[in-house]
Amino acid sequence: MTEPKPGLYVEEPVSKSTRMATPVKRIIAFVRTKYQEAVVAEFEEFGLSLILDGYTQSTELDEFIYHEALVHPAMITHERPERVLVVGGGEGATLREVLKHNTVREAVMVDIDGEVVELCKRHLAVIHQGSFSDPRARLVIMDGKDYIEKSESGAFDVIVLDLTDPYSSEVARELYTAEFYRSVYRVLSERGVVVTQAGSSFFYGDVYDWVLNNVKLVFPIVREYSIWVPSFGYACNFIVGSKGRDPAALSIEDVEKAIDSRGLRGKLKLYSGRVHAALMLMPVLRKP
Amino acid sequence: MTEPKPGLYVEEPVSKSTRMATPVKRIIAFVRTKYQEAVVAEFEEFGLSLILDGYTQSTELDEFIYHEALVHPAMITHERPERVLVVGGGEGATLREVLKHNTVREAVMVDIDGEVVELCKRHLAVIHQGSFSDPRARLVIMDGKDYIEKSESGAFDVIVLDLTDPYSSEVARELYTAEFYRSVYRVLSERGVVVTQAGSSFFYGDVYDWVLNNVKLVFPIVREYSIWVPSFGYACNFIVGSKGRDPAALSIEDVEKAIDSRGLRGKLKLYSGRVHAALMLMPVLRKP
Amino acid sequence: MTEPKPGLYVEEPVSKSTRMATPVKRIIAFVRTKYQEAVVAEFEEFGLSLILDGYTQSTELDEFIYHEALVHPAMITHERPERVLVVGGGEGATLREVLKHNTVREAVMVDIDGEVVELCKRHLAVIHQGSFSDPRARLVIMDGKDYIEKSESGAFDVIVLDLTDPYSSEVARELYTAEFYRSVYRVLSERGVVVTQAGSSFFYGDVYDWVLNNVKLVFPIVREYSIWVPSFGYACNFIVGSKGRDPAALSIEDVEKAIDSRGLRGKLKLYSGRVHAALMLMPVLRKP
Amino acid sequence: MTEPKPGLYVEEPVSKSTRMATPVKRIIAFVRTKYQEAVVAEFEEFGLSLILDGYTQSTELDEFIYHEALVHPAMITHERPERVLVVGGGEGATLREVLKHNTVREAVMVDIDGEVVELCKRHLAVIHQGSFSDPRARLVIMDGKDYIEKSESGAFDVIVLDLTDPYSSEVARELYTAEFYRSVYRVLSERGVVVTQAGSSFFYGDVYDWVLNNVKLVFPIVREYSIWVPSFGYACNFIVGSKGRDPAALSIEDVEKAIDSRGLRGKLKLYSGRVHAALMLMPVLRKP
Repeated sequence: MTEPKPGLYVEEPVSKSTRMATPVKRIIAFVRTKYQEAVVAEFEEFGLSLILDGYTQSTELDEFIYHEALVHPAMITHERPERVLVVGGGEGATLREVLKHNTVREAVMVDIDGEVVELCKRHLAVIHQGSFSDPRARLVIMDGKDYIEKSESGAFDVIVLDLTDPYSSEVARELYTAEFYRSVYRVLSERGVVVTQAGSSFFYGDVYDWVLNNVKLVFPIVREYSIWVPSFGYACNFIVGSKGRDPAALSIEDVEKAIDSRGLRGKLKLYSGRVHAALMLMPVLRKP
Repeated sequence: MTEPKPGLYVEEPVSKSTRMATPVKRIIAFVRTKYQEAVVAEFEEFGLSLILDGYTQSTELDEFIYHEALVHPAMITHERPERVLVVGGGEGATLREVLKHNTVREAVMVDIDGEVVELCKRHLAVIHQGSFSDPRARLVIMDGKDYIEKSESGAFDVIVLDLTDPYSSEVARELYTAEFYRSVYRVLSERGVVVTQAGSSFFYGDVYDWVLNNVKLVFPIVREYSIWVPSFGYACNFIVGSKGRDPAALSIEDVEKAIDSRGLRGKLKLYSGRVHAALMLMPVLRKP
Repeated sequence: MTEPKPGLYVEEPVSKSTRMATPVKRIIAFVRTKYQEAVVAEFEEFGLSLILDGYTQSTELDEFIYHEALVHPAMITHERPERVLVVGGGEGATLREVLKHNTVREAVMVDIDGEVVELCKRHLAVIHQGSFSDPRARLVIMDGKDYIEKSESGAFDVIVLDLTDPYSSEVARELYTAEFYRSVYRVLSERGVVVTQAGSSFFYGDVYDWVLNNVKLVFPIVREYSIWVPSFGYACNFIVGSKGRDPAALSIEDVEKAIDSRGLRGKLKLYSGRVHAALMLMPVLRKP
Repeated sequence: MTEPKPGLYVEEPVSKSTRMATPVKRIIAFVRTKYQEAVVAEFEEFGLSLILDGYTQSTELDEFIYHEALVHPAMITHERPERVLVVGGGEGATLREVLKHNTVREAVMVDIDGEVVELCKRHLAVIHQGSFSDPRARLVIMDGKDYIEKSESGAFDVIVLDLTDPYSSEVARELYTAEFYRSVYRVLSERGVVVTQAGSSFFYGDVYDWVLNNVKLVFPIVREYSIWVPSFGYACNFIVGSKGRDPAALSIEDVEKAIDSRGLRGKLKLYSGRVHAALMLMPVLRKP
């Protein structure tokens, strides 16, 4: 008989029926903000982590997988992203990946929850790595939907939607609707690209289909891909909508060239031409 | 299918094989002190709680059961406890119960972990209820064993040992030995009484027997009793050693009279003459 | 880091928020009967166990606590129980305890779920210990409520209601109503005694109060008591209704004498005069 | 507050620190064989499942992902697999996938644990789909290592190693050594191909590297790939060793042509030319 290790755990659903339990080594901060319950914790195996409403958002160990897979396919799909908008992404890692592209002149990050952003700024430097202080970065605390509605047409080349799951919380639901994507379309420049994380197509196929369809109602080119994120326990899906290039049309060489020209070489842990090609080739998993 | 509630839980062993999981509503404080990991949390059902090294010590909802059962049988057994020593009991509730006896002129509380005491002082007023500020109370941060060894013979009428379990952590192991009880005996006054919590006689019979035997090696009168503590998931055992009166010899009326004369009437949630009698009558539970 | 032991566990609520997990060493049988899901399992620490709808009913290690506490106070309260009715109690242990009283000439056990009884007969001999084969025992598979309604007035001296909790399943809810207790009253002989298990007065005070009140509406003498059952993780409550003697009026000596005259001496692991007295003295625990 | 669903769960490690809990709807069979504890259960969401020593091996819902990813890349890599050996794979699904290739004239499945195979034959028809009855299939109950050592040189075109993880149990450890792979090499025909599942390269990098290196010590061409298996909670890795063609050199069209010529069209839920290409392109995930 093994005596179970006593102490704190984060328990979170992986699917409608399964749950994952992760032992907590240390609680760094616990805040109930206006919008959600935010915890910064150190996990035994995954290191520093941000947990919102009980769902792990990012961990020191594996956030590179999620954030590189979220940001770079869309950024590379645009020929020359200069103005980029990040909605959500409180931990600053999405911003960090965006800023790695030397074409970027301005990266606006809009997050509804200023308390979460402050929490991450203070405690998760290992994750944001100073991205908030980049002179090209601008942080706006407001509802992403409002921000986009108030933005000028064509204001951004790439928009990255780094939101909580459409099924796990109420906070972000409206940012997955067709109506919202129409606003996004308007605010994107002529050959603009949007990407959103989209939860699990396998476990929550209905919601995923609804999101996918909403993007398809608005964008001429839509691609989907997924990658397993260890601390989530599942493969996370992403959907790209493009007004210009087709991300699936980029060759391995196209991507590798862009990695060089954008100054990304040596700064990536996962993303590459091969990874881009594999993500575009691999069908997303569905319940049969 | 029920989606499990995502978020923080405290998981702790109830026995060598079973474990209990308690959902956390809020983390108030998390400290790794010199001696242990201390968490002040709000539980869904049990309210504010102190958790040391992953083991729940006290919760707002049910700490009265543990603390009244720990303190009053020993206090009532002594004819007139004036000087009382509490070892451990960082949350201040043992001290609080001791101070309810109007015979008490001085109550010294010795805890090895000043950081835990500070944590409780600040965050668990609902539990200590100001006991630390009572003019009769004196707090000493030092090893209880050292304190007792340095105390004069006969210095205390009652000693209450409110320690972590002898099997769940290393911190307190030495305070369950026969050698330690000999020091306790010396420091108690002529008709002095000691009580210690002693974990679970059912699940950890070997360790419990060792502790019980150690008390019996030193004290002429030894009684054992137990009461279920909801947030522990098990019946907690207590052992009284007495140089004077036998706690099992007190009648319901004796106890009720003392409750009046000591000014306890109206201040107790559990303890009474009937409870005292029942605790003394009921054999502690053992694996057959 | 400890790798958690992989395999099967029984998870069950201890309260509205806490749950207990118990590792399973072996599944002996799994049956979905007409009424419930029944599992016979071997637990790591508790041995052979019956689990109904996910709730542990009895384990080899500690069932003596529950069954002796359920049966003997009521049986001893009656001056000479000859005809006894057990409702529920599929594992045969309640029947076993009833049959230990040499006054008993007939013990009828009525259980609604014949499949569960068969399961226990075959796999839980270590628990029923042959009680079903006692010539004084008679097993009836039918709804306990119907059986009682169809029984003659005054047919039984003692009725033992060994049912699933009033709050954990629908199966038994009707057997906790005042209407049902009126039927029980009618079927009891002149100085008849009924006892029912009643779940947790601490965690489910509302339901418990409803049950207690229902018994009080019907019986002139009502007593309540509780005892911690290790495999439940909580103190289980019992309520006695009596038309004759008051169980709380029996002295330790009364009980000890009956233990001798009934032939119980040497056959009990827990129950005694002291235990009876303690159970009657100790108030049941409630949330403050 | 949500009352957690009471009942049986399978808890299993996903990594060294995290664990996943899956609710069990029904236990179909529980056997402690000579080699391991085998459970056939119905999961709430995943359907019928085989669990060995507490680790989920296959579930009705998602076994196609694991088994198609295990079998087809290796089978397609060989120009014309006629004689195929499966080692392990008690549930018969690996055999099922192998037999889908119309080139196969004989498929030998060697499993050490005849009781597990019998269990699967009887209870998991939904998984094996009759593969054991295919006239080309032959089942041998013996140690895979011994079988291979006693086989003639060049006896098989493809060998599929469908074993329990190298780190989760002792049963299979020897079938991941360089010595074993040398035997495999000898038994493979001139352009033979071997594939083994290899657990998680992310969570158990050390063991994975050891296995990968062992294959590389023996085979001239070695490729690795991985795919997320929902019921495992992680991406499962596979390693191919080839004496002939390089699986990474096959184009999408090559694979699609083979799917047609082998009679696989319409019989696959996941595998395709795109999937093959994606698996070969995507680097396996490692802790940074």
